[in-house]
Amino acid sequence: MHNTAILLVSCPDRRGIVASISDFIFRHNANILTNDEHADEASNLFLTRVEFDLDTLSFDFSEFTERFSPMARDFKMSWRIARSSDRHRVAIFVSKYDHCLQDLLYRHKSGELACDIPLIISNHPDNQRTADFYGIPYFVIPVTKDNKQEAEQKQLALIREHKCNLVVLARYMQVVSSDFISTFGSENIINIHHSFLPAFVGSKPYHQAFQRGVKLIGATSHYVTQVLDDGPIIEQDVVRIYHRDSIDDLIQKGRDIEKVVLSRAVRWHVENRILLYANKTVVFQ
Amino acid sequence: MHNTAILLVSCPDRRGIVASISDFIFRHNANILTNDEHADEASNLFLTRVEFDLDTLSFDFSEFTERFSPMARDFKMSWRIARSSDRHRVAIFVSKYDHCLQDLLYRHKSGELACDIPLIISNHPDNQRTADFYGIPYFVIPVTKDNKQEAEQKQLALIREHKCNLVVLARYMQVVSSDFISTFGSENIINIHHSFLPAFVGSKPYHQAFQRGVKLIGATSHYVTQVLDDGPIIEQDVVRIYHRDSIDDLIQKGRDIEKVVLSRAVRWHVENRILLYANKTVVFQ
Amino acid sequence: MHNTAILLVSCPDRRGIVASISDFIFRHNANILTNDEHADEASNLFLTRVEFDLDTLSFDFSEFTERFSPMARDFKMSWRIARSSDRHRVAIFVSKYDHCLQDLLYRHKSGELACDIPLIISNHPDNQRTADFYGIPYFVIPVTKDNKQEAEQKQLALIREHKCNLVVLARYMQVVSSDFISTFGSENIINIHHSFLPAFVGSKPYHQAFQRGVKLIGATSHYVTQVLDDGPIIEQDVVRIYHRDSIDDLIQKGRDIEKVVLSRAVRWHVENRILLYANKTVVFQ
Amino acid sequence: MHNTAILLVSCPDRRGIVASISDFIFRHNANILTNDEHADEASNLFLTRVEFDLDTLSFDFSEFTERFSPMARDFKMSWRIARSSDRHRVAIFVSKYDHCLQDLLYRHKSGELACDIPLIISNHPDNQRTADFYGIPYFVIPVTKDNKQEAEQKQLALIREHKCNLVVLARYMQVVSSDFISTFGSENIINIHHSFLPAFVGSKPYHQAFQRGVKLIGATSHYVTQVLDDGPIIEQDVVRIYHRDSIDDLIQKGRDIEKVVLSRAVRWHVENRILLYANKTVVFQ
Repeated sequence: MHNTAILLVSCPDRRGIVASISDFIFRHNANILTNDEHADEASNLFLTRVEFDLDTLSFDFSEFTERFSPMARDFKMSWRIARSSDRHRVAIFVSKYDHCLQDLLYRHKSGELACDIPLIISNHPDNQRTADFYGIPYFVIPVTKDNKQEAEQKQLALIREHKCNLVVLARYMQVVSSDFISTFGSENIINIHHSFLPAFVGSKPYHQAFQRGVKLIGATSHYVTQVLDDGPIIEQDVVRIYHRDSIDDLIQKGRDIEKVVLSRAVRWHVENRILLYANKTVVFQ
Repeated sequence: MHNTAILLVSCPDRRGIVASISDFIFRHNANILTNDEHADEASNLFLTRVEFDLDTLSFDFSEFTERFSPMARDFKMSWRIARSSDRHRVAIFVSKYDHCLQDLLYRHKSGELACDIPLIISNHPDNQRTADFYGIPYFVIPVTKDNKQEAEQKQLALIREHKCNLVVLARYMQVVSSDFISTFGSENIINIHHSFLPAFVGSKPYHQAFQRGVKLIGATSHYVTQVLDDGPIIEQDVVRIYHRDSIDDLIQKGRDIEKVVLSRAVRWHVENRILLYANKTVVFQ
Repeated sequence: MHNTAILLVSCPDRRGIVASISDFIFRHNANILTNDEHADEASNLFLTRVEFDLDTLSFDFSEFTERFSPMARDFKMSWRIARSSDRHRVAIFVSKYDHCLQDLLYRHKSGELACDIPLIISNHPDNQRTADFYGIPYFVIPVTKDNKQEAEQKQLALIREHKCNLVVLARYMQVVSSDFISTFGSENIINIHHSFLPAFVGSKPYHQAFQRGVKLIGATSHYVTQVLDDGPIIEQDVVRIYHRDSIDDLIQKGRDIEKVVLSRAVRWHVENRILLYANKTVVFQ
Repeated sequence: MHNTAILLVSCPDRRGIVASISDFIFRHNANILTNDEHADEASNLFLTRVEFDLDTLSFDFSEFTERFSPMARDFKMSWRIARSSDRHRVAIFVSKYDHCLQDLLYRHKSGELACDIPLIISNHPDNQRTADFYGIPYFVIPVTKDNKQEAEQKQLALIREHKCNLVVLARYMQVVSSDFISTFGSENIINIHHSFLPAFVGSKPYHQAFQRGVKLIGATSHYVTQVLDDGPIIEQDVVRIYHRDSIDDLIQKGRDIEKVVLSRAVRWHVENRILLYANKTVVFQ
């Protein structure tokens, strides 16, 4: 494993951005490992992700912001920097369905997800044993119509206490409130929706798909915004279904893509591969 | 190639349907080549497709209806029978985009589509050369706001004159009227829509998909009903897109799935593989 | 869940098989739920799977063989019958890699695999905790060059003791001996090979794939025969790889298809959906 | 359409390559449009593709080599530069099967392939009409055991006369000789093989696949080397097959992936997206 930093930048497109960034890194004695960019012509936006080796960097990493800021101002950059060693701290929210939870925890244990998972929050006690198996604290906060605001305050307190910077809704069967989203930040909450959005928004998408007679069903991971199932899409996938498939078969087949589509989104987020613009994501791979 | 007949049946599910049908065929000395069925529990419906060899059938095929009707009445069957030698007669409608047209004509020429294509109807002269290359009469019937009804009357007259029993809208950029649909029959008109329905109904679906930031684009072939893009889905497929893909790239990538999804639908229809129920299709393969 | 029986038949193709079987079932008052068949023209073989409801069967199921045998003899059938309530008893073999094991146990727990798993056998102690989590006895039988024969005797004794009729090699990193295969039966042992067979037979297939520069990697589940990686293929799937993918990335991406491809094979086997002929499988779905 | 140049570089990996190249382009007043790179750790090789706008370049493009060479020497680069306006000149070789030919010509006509196709060479007269339809000269050069050397001399003469720099074997059913490959250059000849290489090398791969009982069939486009079907793979894809599929069905299903896999390879080649190393390709997209 390299000891690297990842620089994510978006700014108005103009000549010299790549040259300036790569020269900055080169002048300070670091080696670029990967370098991805995207120019969106419609919005005249330039987006880039640069990963470089920190071992030979000629100044202390703590000075990066100070040293890079002048250039960032020149180019009117929105930017952030992270070290590969700065692991995201992820709070997983789950209800009763455990397939996404199991999948995330298994991938985490096998080293596929380079993040910490300090806690799991659920509105049901059902997944305690699974959390125990993976050695992760499991907090049960029941949610009802009446206590929703209070429950979310408890959730936010726990998240803060555990210093989490990402919430993953792993088939959490409650709509998260506007307040929660505003407080924690839309760009820090990832949801999995069990349809190929924008088809079948809302509840029971497999039932909707069955009624409509589609030939493929899908799953979509996305950031959570104030409008239900309308946030920037991170990843989608589909699976073919057949006329013999009942709704239960759809639910079962869907589990396999939900898992994969959510875990990819979490992985890309914690590896700092995602940039947001215009209600869309750019994922650098 | 076998000289076969295909029997398509749907009826209320009850004991003895398979036995009765297969016994009928056996008693009359014919061999079943393929036998597919589907029982839809929700609607208590039984659907089946039986293909059997005609060479040894003990009576003349012209008597089939008379001989089979008593059993059909007993089981309250909706049914139809076709010989593999009874080729569908297909009218292709097209506007300017020629990728679906080219694909259908090429597959027809190579023997993939066991139907006749006696004519192509277009509201533009652009595809005359292609029609000529494949030796198929090409009729130009311009359509404007003002002459739509009259134009459709001309289309229907041509279709009747050429004894067509299937209309394929191969990127025909006009909405077909309710009258046309009622006259020719919803179950005899196949359209290709360039999105993964029910997402992105209506016009410019690739533009809609681009705006929404989806990660896969799709195409859907379906029977045409009175409600736009809402008919029974026959086939769907998707292709992955990337952040570098412009709308033009989507359009180009989409062409490849439109072609495949439409040609599959036409093939299954002319091979008598499709049964309709509850705004859905069952496709026996 | 229906209380059903599944009849699997292969025999020389001739007129009247479908009629005779369906009539037999109908005469004895049972309802056919699904009925799949395949006629292989090259070998003049007819294969069929019929699932019928047992609740109304007019005789006791224990008499099935006696009553069906005359017809079976007439048609020279190879056949077997199983009740959906007769659950397969599966012994899972595993070494250190646990992804297939985890996946099978999770699917089993969620009800996707209608079988019993009375034991896990491993040549390493590593997966004890996982077995404990799912409450399945875990037996460690170390295998070395010198003790292989003896180890296999112990394995076979355990399998017999637990009345297993299927062995699943879930990334079991030992070649199973000819004796073991002869004793337990080639058609009762399923393996997962981490390549798209017949490409990359033998060890380290991901390394072989990386060296060859393929653009997709695959996984294959198959029955185990005396020739390494040459048995009848049950299922295969592939995943796209990119030039940035290292061998470790291939291994990781491959895990996801290995799991899916193996679990499908096990599922189809325990649901009595697989018929073998000519070193091939027919899978009725 | 931008008036751009594409720079392709491979060299030993070391600090400063990205910075030096991007600085060179920036200093000469040009804007980088896309910038892709890959570092192969095993071989310590760095590969990059940079596309930049020529409109504002501060010197005449004809001086590029002279001006860039000093830096190229410093970094020990293998490199080449091409303008997007320098269209490849492609000779298509074909025998009787016309699906790849038709697909390439159709895509060329629709603007998907940014190259010129000055001629088609065939050992059979069958595809003359298709060539005529697209207005491309068609040369018939029969090939027999006895005249092979002479025939290839004629082919090479035609290719030279038409100034072609790429040969596409679009289901050309003759093995190209070592001499031909040496003369024209392995990296300038693309073939389509109708299997998922390295499975089913050689003749009749669909028959081989059918015999082996695989569940997916594939197609592979690759550069042609002295060893049959062993050259660097450019693209591969697969399609699922079912037990009802005969060899003829495999051949038909295979056509659809052959077309797509070959046309992608040709497209990427003529867009200067492919770099070769270690019998592999890197395709920058």
